[in-house]
Amino acid sequence: MVRKMKFSEFQKLIDDLYGERDRRRGLDRTALWMVEEVGELAEAVRKRDRELAEEEVADVIAWVVSVANILGIDVEKAVEKKYPGKCPRCNSIPCRCPE
Amino acid sequence: MVRKMKFSEFQKLIDDLYGERDRRRGLDRTALWMVEEVGELAEAVRKRDRELAEEEVADVIAWVVSVANILGIDVEKAVEKKYPGKCPRCNSIPCRCPE
Repeated sequence: MVRKMKFSEFQKLIDDLYGERDRRRGLDRTALWMVEEVGELAEAVRKRDRELAEEEVADVIAWVVSVANILGIDVEKAVEKKYPGKCPRCNSIPCRCPE
Repeated sequence: MVRKMKFSEFQKLIDDLYGERDRRRGLDRTALWMVEEVGELAEAVRKRDRELAEEEVADVIAWVVSVANILGIDVEKAVEKKYPGKCPRCNSIPCRCPE
């Protein structure tokens, strides 16, 4: 696969790979699986296991995309709508919001 | 921002917006914030609130990218390494793994 992967390409890949199974499994159980993968990323972070964290980052994004696929959400549009090149709250780069 | 956003562009945007603050906050608390956002997505899924889910999908991906930024993980490389156009376990499209 060529470098510079776009969100739209990845979302189509995940749909091609897992879309039918995701829809058969259903939204709730797919969301639960996503949460499970987030737990695995949290574990990798806690253990400071960078190599495992790299794999889990990919898995979490893949499962978020599976949830998006079931809901008919265009991930690229969602991301660009929420983060249009600036902070969605303070409108600054970098963000100047109080934490 | 032009359409067809690439992972690499989004990762740079999140670093420009939040990277300094993320590093100052630290890995553990940034990962906790990521988990908090996943909880918000889970709530949107449970309530079948598609509009909120769209926003939370963007937030979860942004926070996963913040964690990746602190760890020096290239999200695009991580995703392409784990999902090189086929299922990482059964090597099929679509996936034929037993669930």
